Amino acid sequence: MDNTLENDVSLAIGHRSLSDLETRLPLWPPISQQATASGTSYPVEVTYAYDRVDRQLFAQPPLPGLERWAPLLPPLAPGLSMAEGGTALVPAPELAAWAGLNGELFIKDESRNPTWSHKDRFNLCSVSVAVATGAPGVVLSSSGNHGASAAAYAARAGLSCIVLVSPDTPPAVQSFVQAYGAAVLAVPPAGSQTLIRQIVERLGYHFAHHSWGCEGYKTLAYEVFGQLGGRVPTAVFIPTSNAQLLFGVWKGFRELHELGVAASTPVMMACEPATRASHFRAIEANQDHVEIVEGPTIAYAIGSSVSSTLGLLALRQSSGVAVSILDDETQAAQVALAGRGMWQEASGAISLAGLRQVIAAGRRFDGPVVCVTCSSGFKDLGVGRDPAPASELEWGLVCRTLARHYGTQRALAEQLRPFLGA
Amino acid sequence: MDNTLENDVSLAIGHRSLSDLETRLPLWPPISQQATASGTSYPVEVTYAYDRVDRQLFAQPPLPGLERWAPLLPPLAPGLSMAEGGTALVPAPELAAWAGLNGELFIKDESRNPTWSHKDRFNLCSVSVAVATGAPGVVLSSSGNHGASAAAYAARAGLSCIVLVSPDTPPAVQSFVQAYGAAVLAVPPAGSQTLIRQIVERLGYHFAHHSWGCEGYKTLAYEVFGQLGGRVPTAVFIPTSNAQLLFGVWKGFRELHELGVAASTPVMMACEPATRASHFRAIEANQDHVEIVEGPTIAYAIGSSVSSTLGLLALRQSSGVAVSILDDETQAAQVALAGRGMWQEASGAISLAGLRQVIAAGRRFDGPVVCVTCSSGFKDLGVGRDPAPASELEWGLVCRTLARHYGTQRALAEQLRPFLGA
Repeated sequence: MDNTLENDVSLAIGHRSLSDLETRLPLWPPISQQATASGTSYPVEVTYAYDRVDRQLFAQPPLPGLERWAPLLPPLAPGLSMAEGGTALVPAPELAAWAGLNGELFIKDESRNPTWSHKDRFNLCSVSVAVATGAPGVVLSSSGNHGASAAAYAARAGLSCIVLVSPDTPPAVQSFVQAYGAAVLAVPPAGSQTLIRQIVERLGYHFAHHSWGCEGYKTLAYEVFGQLGGRVPTAVFIPTSNAQLLFGVWKGFRELHELGVAASTPVMMACEPATRASHFRAIEANQDHVEIVEGPTIAYAIGSSVSSTLGLLALRQSSGVAVSILDDETQAAQVALAGRGMWQEASGAISLAGLRQVIAAGRRFDGPVVCVTCSSGFKDLGVGRDPAPASELEWGLVCRTLARHYGTQRALAEQLRPFLGA
Repeated sequence: MDNTLENDVSLAIGHRSLSDLETRLPLWPPISQQATASGTSYPVEVTYAYDRVDRQLFAQPPLPGLERWAPLLPPLAPGLSMAEGGTALVPAPELAAWAGLNGELFIKDESRNPTWSHKDRFNLCSVSVAVATGAPGVVLSSSGNHGASAAAYAARAGLSCIVLVSPDTPPAVQSFVQAYGAAVLAVPPAGSQTLIRQIVERLGYHFAHHSWGCEGYKTLAYEVFGQLGGRVPTAVFIPTSNAQLLFGVWKGFRELHELGVAASTPVMMACEPATRASHFRAIEANQDHVEIVEGPTIAYAIGSSVSSTLGLLALRQSSGVAVSILDDETQAAQVALAGRGMWQEASGAISLAGLRQVIAAGRRFDGPVVCVTCSSGFKDLGVGRDPAPASELEWGLVCRTLARHYGTQRALAEQLRPFLGA
């Protein structure tokens, strides 16, 4: 391993196969966890010298800066961290009522990260690998969040970055990725894997998608545990596409339990758009692998065209469930969140929609529930397409403009009525 | 005062005139600090029973949730807080070098708030007043951040919200404000004050702009003090428009000093777009009030058309300076920040541009310097106007597309050269 990754606080010691727990592999090189639609991946995880972990690690306040969890992360490139994580856990009693939950609900708001999504936890770890390999750049395909985050960390590392996006990615999201100096290519999703392979082989770029990245997501679990004052949530609802976030968060809670720090583990709930719902279908069909289904959804950021078995593992180990969610349900959750001051992208709001659906189906939770939201509403399709109505300054005209455009808001319509004239 | 604001942890006791320190006013009602271009405001601040402040308040970790500072805030409406603040303080040695600073530099990244700007600190306090008055709604004019934040907190409080924007506000920013259920009206800025007055008088709405709001900004100072391990920065650079943030942050540091918690106070640096630069001009002309100058700037979010004397007070009390900054300098700072993984709006990046300018002019700082950045680049003009080039999947075409659009990136151009053919 390159010297730039020397970090004697990491206790990472190797890889372990998740399908055959006796199979051990070295820590280096990181292993791709990704497979294309035609096959499943090689399921591995990074493993650590757990017997050397000081439990005081989990007594610290959950402030930003993932290097605070360095013993349980792969070696991080020095200076790469930018105070990611430490995101707010927002108590949400009104949203609990909305979802029908008779108990505590918290929103883990991952839009409070440096590039405003959970992906920063991944890319801190992932780009550390690119630095160590001496690659001249990083390449990946992304619907937005991952691309912007990888571009940001690549920029910090002084590396080039090429991000493949689908041609229908919102222009504002493309600006977002380009702002960090990344080159953005709009290509048909079907061809992106081949192109990535070419960029890796011909330009020597690092493909930012492997076993080390997921490890960053574990920190979300450590933080929630601290933010709940040392309690473990009964259930954690996660927006799910290729399930790396689901697996990472599960692994964090599993470690807390295995280290004897936490008394239990949560049930992991994978929330998927119904038009895709890969994990939901795999479990329904009792399959041991996940087949990618392509279908349109407003939650485009969790419309991955790659898959792994990591999600199924997390669901089975945690006695979890995959929830298949209609876009209407997701949209209702998005409106409910915004009504409590949290404008989340559809792909993030789906976790709250998942909670509401399983409660409606009769599920009960006898402890705190956490819904993870991933990023801001800025990234959604349609943002900016409905500019506010221009208005003259004359009072009667102002009232009519407001009534015409916002008349469905009952309180406002009521207030305006006396001024609308005949 | 309405019972909904009963909050026995607030030590707020009244208002104090800032021009005549002997003049005391009751805590209720809050007092407008805003004046139109034709006049200056009535400068007041909220004052507290400082002798009853437990210094242990400042020993707590600077986590999100402003209610943790409740003793030194006006009374907050119960349940309104949504874990705002506690934003990351990012060490930025490379940006220090870029700005020519021979010392420690930190970026206080206010884009990590619930609606991704510092305005959440203001609106927690400001909307608390609206709740207490029993107003049916909140009205304000805004270039975006303030509007979205007020809309979010109004939504949490169950109040209507009308936000007046300039017709050239980016459509995505309008979506942002509307997402929280606010009614957005695009009106000429010149008429917005009159319209606000009408909405206040005829609809009974609360105008979200008064002495209580600024108090929320103090918490930024408390956090920085904690994040620096009990050190006070030598200088704090603040994007400045009507200077409420400048005044609020200054007040926080002043309190820390007067309470005997901190040994010193920082120099406050007001960073203004050169085309407006109201404080810069007022100080140059040795005026005791600030005249609004209207001029075009990419930093449109700090193009306020209202003014107060609060900024001048903060600058004079702190031996501070107002810095007049060209859009080119702001843009260079924005690129430098993005190159370190922080995509900030132009109006936020201006603080780093201000640091660079004063260093170039010979100023030295012998301690940590903090630049406050306010919000994400998503809010800038031009975002989404330059979608990525579509590309065929054929390797030669991909390389040519990349070279054509990103050829100014020297490293990438170098990597592509072997594949570009004749």
